Amino acid sequence: MIPQDHPRYRSLMVREHLARCAAEGILSLEGLTAHGRGEAFDYLIGERTMESALLAEKTAAALLILARRPVISVNGNTAALAAGSIALLQNASNAAVEVNLFHRTEERVRKITALLEDHGVQVLKGEAERLLPLTHDRALCLPGGIGSADVVLVPLEDGDRCQALVNMGKTVIAIDLNPLSRTAMTATLTIVDEVTRALPRMGRFCRDLTKEEIQVLATGYDNRELLRSAIREIRSRLDHALD
Amino acid sequence: MIPQDHPRYRSLMVREHLARCAAEGILSLEGLTAHGRGEAFDYLIGERTMESALLAEKTAAALLILARRPVISVNGNTAALAAGSIALLQNASNAAVEVNLFHRTEERVRKITALLEDHGVQVLKGEAERLLPLTHDRALCLPGGIGSADVVLVPLEDGDRCQALVNMGKTVIAIDLNPLSRTAMTATLTIVDEVTRALPRMGRFCRDLTKEEIQVLATGYDNRELLRSAIREIRSRLDHALD
Repeated sequence: MIPQDHPRYRSLMVREHLARCAAEGILSLEGLTAHGRGEAFDYLIGERTMESALLAEKTAAALLILARRPVISVNGNTAALAAGSIALLQNASNAAVEVNLFHRTEERVRKITALLEDHGVQVLKGEAERLLPLTHDRALCLPGGIGSADVVLVPLEDGDRCQALVNMGKTVIAIDLNPLSRTAMTATLTIVDEVTRALPRMGRFCRDLTKEEIQVLATGYDNRELLRSAIREIRSRLDHALD
Repeated sequence: MIPQDHPRYRSLMVREHLARCAAEGILSLEGLTAHGRGEAFDYLIGERTMESALLAEKTAAALLILARRPVISVNGNTAALAAGSIALLQNASNAAVEVNLFHRTEERVRKITALLEDHGVQVLKGEAERLLPLTHDRALCLPGGIGSADVVLVPLEDGDRCQALVNMGKTVIAIDLNPLSRTAMTATLTIVDEVTRALPRMGRFCRDLTKEEIQVLATGYDNRELLRSAIREIRSRLDHALD
């Protein structure tokens, strides 16, 4: 048990929750390490949503609303951290939800699907096919889901797969706390924020944005500049770290 | 299996090794997440030893050589990543090695001890007592080990425990990739480097430093300034990230 007087109590509680999810087979053990990477970057941005991320979240909502076939790609980490928020966002955006895993086994797909459904998510099902030009089971996705999507939201994605989706001509929206990662750099739009902060807010924006705002946001963004802002914020926090 | 063409192959292989160690009960599941935090900071410093870290490693070797009762405190992550390097450093420094865990169970202590012994480490044994003013089993340590040490090397330490050891008047040398962590800030001397790079080099310094060098190093360091250098290096890498 984590002592409540520990200064990193909240962060440790999330870690414990994820450890339980890993023990249950929802998260891969490697997913726990990936979460730690995210934690470190979140720490550097101050564990709050930056201005640039807020703009990226608004823009992402606009892209989802304008999409013909939006799909939210969900992995173990996203499901363990934010199943309820995925349900909210699906509701607000009418996006399909597909379970898509780096460390893929049929058992994990089944468990993650069950977890999502328990939180009210409608999960796409079917026979996954090797549609992405990647070695490894990361290539597997559903022809009626990611395979034919025009806009794909990938929270916590692997850089290779992000690149493959972009190469297929899809609009890829990534949520990634590391503004330097290959995922962040190759996505069409990158949200440098923590998923449990980003997803519910994106849901609200999907409901609240006006048609005019949606048009302006969807045509007027510059992902390179959004990433630059995120990096500038991290830098300026480091500047004052040892004052 | 990780595809060999993955750009983060090495990092993913280490994650897989740690995942196996977690499955075997050497690492706690929370330790996997902690490793990810380290990975992120290592990524930011370019996965190489910085000049400031090299100086800190030399200084640490000097402090270990001059110590009357040096102890290396080893947790699951350190054992899983660097059991062989601990053996090397113990040999070169004559330090005692004590297993000291955040998520402590007798079974984990036993498994980590066995792993270390397999790599040639002499591990201190005995009845652990609640010697540190901390809630939780983090307080437990050996009276003849950390309890009576004058210099304690803590690779990958918890901030609270680091502070408690400093408060007891001990010289605490931390190895921590996050120069902003409470551990980094409260330790007497902080090495901002990855343990598998830091430990073998410290072993070599223990053998190679002259008496004169040892005296100069042990009396002339400024931990605040070492941390500032580390933060400056990270900042300057961020400056060029999106050039």
